[in-house]
Amino acid sequence: MSEPHATLAEEAAKLDAADELRAKRAEFVLDDSDNDSDSDDSDGTVYLDGNSLGALPAAVPARLADVIGREWGRLRIRSWEESGWWTAPERIGDRIGRLVGAAPGQVVVGDSTSVNVFKAVVGAVRIAQARAAAGEEPRDGTRGGSPEEPRDGTRGGSPEESRGGARGGSPEESRGGTRDEILVDESTFPTDGYIAESAARMTGCTLRPVPAPDIAAAVGPRTAVALVNHVDYRTGRLHDLPGTTAAVHAAGALVVWDLCHSAGALPVGLDAHGVDLAVGCTYKYLNGGPGSPAYLYVAREHQPRFDSPLPGWNSHADPFGMAPAYAPADGALRGRVGTPDILSMLALEAALEVWDGVSPDAVRAKSLALTDFFLRCVEAYVPAGRVESVTPAAHQERGSQVALRCADAGEVMAELIRRGVVGDFRRPDILRFGFTPLYTGFADVERAARVLAAVLAEAPGEVA
Amino acid sequence: MSEPHATLAEEAAKLDAADELRAKRAEFVLDDSDNDSDSDDSDGTVYLDGNSLGALPAAVPARLADVIGREWGRLRIRSWEESGWWTAPERIGDRIGRLVGAAPGQVVVGDSTSVNVFKAVVGAVRIAQARAAAGEEPRDGTRGGSPEEPRDGTRGGSPEESRGGARGGSPEESRGGTRDEILVDESTFPTDGYIAESAARMTGCTLRPVPAPDIAAAVGPRTAVALVNHVDYRTGRLHDLPGTTAAVHAAGALVVWDLCHSAGALPVGLDAHGVDLAVGCTYKYLNGGPGSPAYLYVAREHQPRFDSPLPGWNSHADPFGMAPAYAPADGALRGRVGTPDILSMLALEAALEVWDGVSPDAVRAKSLALTDFFLRCVEAYVPAGRVESVTPAAHQERGSQVALRCADAGEVMAELIRRGVVGDFRRPDILRFGFTPLYTGFADVERAARVLAAVLAEAPGEVA
Repeated sequence: MSEPHATLAEEAAKLDAADELRAKRAEFVLDDSDNDSDSDDSDGTVYLDGNSLGALPAAVPARLADVIGREWGRLRIRSWEESGWWTAPERIGDRIGRLVGAAPGQVVVGDSTSVNVFKAVVGAVRIAQARAAAGEEPRDGTRGGSPEEPRDGTRGGSPEESRGGARGGSPEESRGGTRDEILVDESTFPTDGYIAESAARMTGCTLRPVPAPDIAAAVGPRTAVALVNHVDYRTGRLHDLPGTTAAVHAAGALVVWDLCHSAGALPVGLDAHGVDLAVGCTYKYLNGGPGSPAYLYVAREHQPRFDSPLPGWNSHADPFGMAPAYAPADGALRGRVGTPDILSMLALEAALEVWDGVSPDAVRAKSLALTDFFLRCVEAYVPAGRVESVTPAAHQERGSQVALRCADAGEVMAELIRRGVVGDFRRPDILRFGFTPLYTGFADVERAARVLAAVLAEAPGEVA
Repeated sequence: MSEPHATLAEEAAKLDAADELRAKRAEFVLDDSDNDSDSDDSDGTVYLDGNSLGALPAAVPARLADVIGREWGRLRIRSWEESGWWTAPERIGDRIGRLVGAAPGQVVVGDSTSVNVFKAVVGAVRIAQARAAAGEEPRDGTRGGSPEEPRDGTRGGSPEESRGGARGGSPEESRGGTRDEILVDESTFPTDGYIAESAARMTGCTLRPVPAPDIAAAVGPRTAVALVNHVDYRTGRLHDLPGTTAAVHAAGALVVWDLCHSAGALPVGLDAHGVDLAVGCTYKYLNGGPGSPAYLYVAREHQPRFDSPLPGWNSHADPFGMAPAYAPADGALRGRVGTPDILSMLALEAALEVWDGVSPDAVRAKSLALTDFFLRCVEAYVPAGRVESVTPAAHQERGSQVALRCADAGEVMAELIRRGVVGDFRRPDILRFGFTPLYTGFADVERAARVLAAVLAEAPGEVA
């Protein structure tokens, strides 16, 4: 096996030398940052888990020290205004907007992804029902599907899907009545499904799980909203955002996209594709730090009708008026809830500086080159039949990770980590490797495949 | 006015010298920490806004630098286990539990106060309705009120209160049926009221605002839950937690206490008084930093029935099983939602170290001594009729702040801040001063009153 090793290692070196994003690596703290990453002798860690927790951007420690020592420690309460704390959710939201194709004023940062899924799904149901009640056409009247809302009382969904059981619902819902179905990507990251079930229960809807590629066909006149992951967290499959969005709109429904595994790894184009609402975390490819706040996108056209189930005081039109009656702010601010977690949020803001001057298309091109190269190295090095890729081969269906099915994946990943190749294990049998274009090099990729092959050769488990 | 100044300044020096908590001041970063705080010559800031944002505990900067540089930067994903990130919400929750009288296993940290109000109020409604549906007695059967649930269909609440409008509701609600009223402290911090209104709307309940002291009399057989602030954020009035809790229980309902303005300033006694659920922020008297995560207390007896409206994956019995079906964890973990914001959370954990060895009774005694002394100094120094205290004089009705009504409060506070006395302004006419027993000294108090008197003498506005 020495020949392919030498050949692929040489190719890796050439690819790294030609990589236009290569200089970005120096903007991160990496164990082997003192070494030459294209050297076979590197003994640092190859970090292929940036799709779970992004590496530390070098700008963060000094920025956070200043936030803590000066802004909190010296200015204290004055920093809410003088240090821009109060407006951080929308300021950082706009910065993320640039990475996901959203014009300013449509993204706010704050809360966890789960909490934002709740806001987005309930908000979308209410918008769909309000439109139906008002007899409005779907937003794209040129597409198929009936813009008329059926008025009969039949309810879709199988018994287990209707376990939510909240009937009736809010005023909008009782006026509209029949947009009472929520579709959810069947293989969704679990929290989206759990939260969607709660949203269904609390808005009198039924929840119907459907494989993401089938949502375009499953959406119907009862559908209020479809909640879909842009990239499947387990398989790395990239779903068809433009096509699914268009199909959902054609049926008069709204779509909420979960961008956790796509933002920062590939272009999303929220505005360009007419996405209604979206959520995402910031601690994966956006490198915001552990549990850094998530974000919510509400397309400008929907903002006047966005009716949050979590109308905290930060979303009030006049938050310091302390009025007993709620009156929502205009725009994306309507998605805010309570006081923002400033330390986590400003770490994220500093982390986002690495994106200055980076083209999303360049990121996507490198991401595909990395995953292509990894698959080639695995095929060259790993004994046949020992692992099987569950990540689609077609570029248009691939995110920025490779998932390999492997019968003894838990033990194999533990050994890989001991040898400095950090991916993660997803039960029951998935080895998951994430490729972060800003700091992963081709030499890392070659080494990871080489170490994987060595581990598998030493531990000849069941054939996948 | 030189006589009372000299006298009160001398008294302040004596009180500071005798203060058993005095050494705690050195554990905070304060502008004048290099000066002798009992000297009239101190030119540092007197910070009386710790009831909005607590001062920086000295242990925080080094701890956060380690969390960022080593735990995130070097260990990265391994820190979820090796650095105890995953269990931080319940570990820090137990630490807060000690300060509010909760035995371990009942408090989790995470999300904002607003989000926790939503979890607590919806969770309490569901528990109340499940108990009613099961025909259970109120938890204290010896108290008055009928344990039988009326079965008629009448609904309380005036028209504006029933604007929520969601009828029916979840399975528990449709079985129980008649516990369909939420009472809320009429002068609540606004976010509690806004969120309670959303909770009412989404559970088919009506919301009825009632002055906090009247809740004991207003609670009735239709009441599912009462949401009450322990200390009024504007007036500083301390409400009767034991008496109100007992009265709510006697009517077969549950109570949710908002502890934002009491935790860390006075003993709360959640377990001792049989409180059902509670929420609170951590950035006021607990000094957790700007927007540090809030907490949720669910009494042990209610945990098996606590049915969160935000069932995120962190609250799952087996979060890494990634099962499509939700199954809640046991205990306080059920109150978790999404991935915790580790930087903000671990800053809070470091901040809580200042409480080691501190007795809540000593904190309360000093708090009352500080506010008593401030009121005396104001009376001695400030021209008669220029300000009026809206904070109760009776100790059992006073939190740890003093609120002074002052016609030109906005301008007066701005000038106070220019002169180094930092309180805050609450519209339309309130000067608010918070007294944090761990770092506020009596000399600070005397100086604040003296500067206030000087400002008022120079700007003789309308008489309050």
